Amino acid sequence: MSELRRDPIGGRWVIVNTDEPTPPEGYEHDIPRSNKPLPCPFCYGNEMHTPPEIIALREPNTAPNSPGWHVRVVPNKFPALQIEGELERRGLGIYDMSNGIGAHEVIIETPYHDKDMTDLTVSEIASILHFYCQRSLDLERDKRFKYIMIFKNYGASAGASLEHPHTQLIALPMVPKSVREEIQGANNYYEYRERCIFCDILRQEMQEKERIIIENKSFIAFCPFVSRFPFEIWIMPMSHTSLFCQTPYEELPKMAEVLKAVLVKIRKIFGDTSYNFIIHTAPVNSDGTNIEGYHWHLEFLPKLTRVAGFEWGTGFYIVPTPPEIAAKYLRDASVTE
Amino acid sequence: MSELRRDPIGGRWVIVNTDEPTPPEGYEHDIPRSNKPLPCPFCYGNEMHTPPEIIALREPNTAPNSPGWHVRVVPNKFPALQIEGELERRGLGIYDMSNGIGAHEVIIETPYHDKDMTDLTVSEIASILHFYCQRSLDLERDKRFKYIMIFKNYGASAGASLEHPHTQLIALPMVPKSVREEIQGANNYYEYRERCIFCDILRQEMQEKERIIIENKSFIAFCPFVSRFPFEIWIMPMSHTSLFCQTPYEELPKMAEVLKAVLVKIRKIFGDTSYNFIIHTAPVNSDGTNIEGYHWHLEFLPKLTRVAGFEWGTGFYIVPTPPEIAAKYLRDASVTE
Repeated sequence: MSELRRDPIGGRWVIVNTDEPTPPEGYEHDIPRSNKPLPCPFCYGNEMHTPPEIIALREPNTAPNSPGWHVRVVPNKFPALQIEGELERRGLGIYDMSNGIGAHEVIIETPYHDKDMTDLTVSEIASILHFYCQRSLDLERDKRFKYIMIFKNYGASAGASLEHPHTQLIALPMVPKSVREEIQGANNYYEYRERCIFCDILRQEMQEKERIIIENKSFIAFCPFVSRFPFEIWIMPMSHTSLFCQTPYEELPKMAEVLKAVLVKIRKIFGDTSYNFIIHTAPVNSDGTNIEGYHWHLEFLPKLTRVAGFEWGTGFYIVPTPPEIAAKYLRDASVTE
Repeated sequence: MSELRRDPIGGRWVIVNTDEPTPPEGYEHDIPRSNKPLPCPFCYGNEMHTPPEIIALREPNTAPNSPGWHVRVVPNKFPALQIEGELERRGLGIYDMSNGIGAHEVIIETPYHDKDMTDLTVSEIASILHFYCQRSLDLERDKRFKYIMIFKNYGASAGASLEHPHTQLIALPMVPKSVREEIQGANNYYEYRERCIFCDILRQEMQEKERIIIENKSFIAFCPFVSRFPFEIWIMPMSHTSLFCQTPYEELPKMAEVLKAVLVKIRKIFGDTSYNFIIHTAPVNSDGTNIEGYHWHLEFLPKLTRVAGFEWGTGFYIVPTPPEIAAKYLRDASVTE
């Protein structure tokens, strides 16, 4: 089992692979990786190469772990954290640690290896989002889990180790430091003004308009005023909701519409570029932490630059394209492919 | 002039290039860059291609901005921040911003294009460290500056845009968020126990020994218990000092000895791999912030993995090689080339 270790200075947690440590020759640094394992475990017909499926969107009368699926959720074969066991936190001199309890699942978005989410239809994307919600709701019933993180890495530069389109879900036994800080920042504002800071940001953006990319009646996509990366995009629900999994299912096609438009626009401008997206949502099973002032959203980060020592050292980012200008390029890019 | 913008939720500052925004075609995403401009402005004999030098280590009777130098400090030709002007902070609705005041300098480490710091002698490295100190001491006299950051990006994967060996120095008009948090974390411990947390870490590491790589009487290099990256290394002075620039000049060769050993060991294990290092030091000209509990150190980050959405989203890192094992590889690697 892996270990969770807590930085005694800043409170950051890291997962350390103490079980099967990677030796130096295991790092393919500076070499573009060839990431086409044969057979691809996520491809149609190769269902036996993944752990048994958790849930899938299937044709009627098809059996689990066989063909006939459209979207498939499976446990990660090489999980960062393991689901079995009791959570044990302990000290080690001045250090804190815990065993590596958690869940690590993969949402296989399509049976087709060479498609990306960008190529899927709005209703196909809505089905994927539906599984994000459903798995979150199921996992939050496990009281050991305090945070459910959903993220997608597309392309080798964004850290994807398998080409076949997929999203990852990790359930953590603690709230990560930067999430805790985000919640704390939102709460401070909420207590002081009795308003959600994200709702206030939305209001200001909708008034100024210059950073908005696209919107429908339920969701909006915009380049945040304080982007950390060029062409960073936030997709946010118009109505104040703390937890992503509280989103009514009937709203998901509206979210899929905006997400699809963002994906197509990015491809229009940059071609087939790497990207990450992460759903920022409030903690679950919180021990009294107020999450009322938080407003979930999706952060979309095209991987256009390499993050250098400056950024690592300080959390101080240099953005070569102001969000106002990025938003204009994105607004102008057509959504029809 | 660029803009500094402050994230209203978490308090993070970013530098936005509003002057000369990079258009989409300016990003060489996913394409390894060819970074050999001809002529290289940092090469011997090309001194006219940089802004006028600030200071240099020179042969007797050689003129500034001419050959005859060993180490040369120049302003960055494309500075992230500009030195002229008054600092003006203002609000913009719920957002905070400031004009982009600061200093951005380059320490050209050697006249030779194809050498890396790894190839230099201990005394040559000591001369470079001497300039880090000297420039810090000079810049901190400017009361507008609150933080002086020294960092090196080596190799394209680490974000270096020029091949010729160089280090960068940025003086900032505010303390970056992650530095402020690190200081705060150290102060909390200091107030509670009346001891420096970094000194306690050193004591624990020297007792356990398993994460130590190399040490001399003044400096120690070890893999931190809560590494965020595989083969992450901290170089720390044995004696409690808050500011890097307070290091007595006669100690710098001792630091150079440990840094050189780390560089050679990393090359022994990984070949010519990309890396970043950042000097973590306390803020300068602080308005009453207590920096007594802080202990400066250098964080060395070999660039072996690509940081994925998971890490960006949460500040929650997955480390494939435990620091205990990384330290063993590093101890075992010979320091003779």
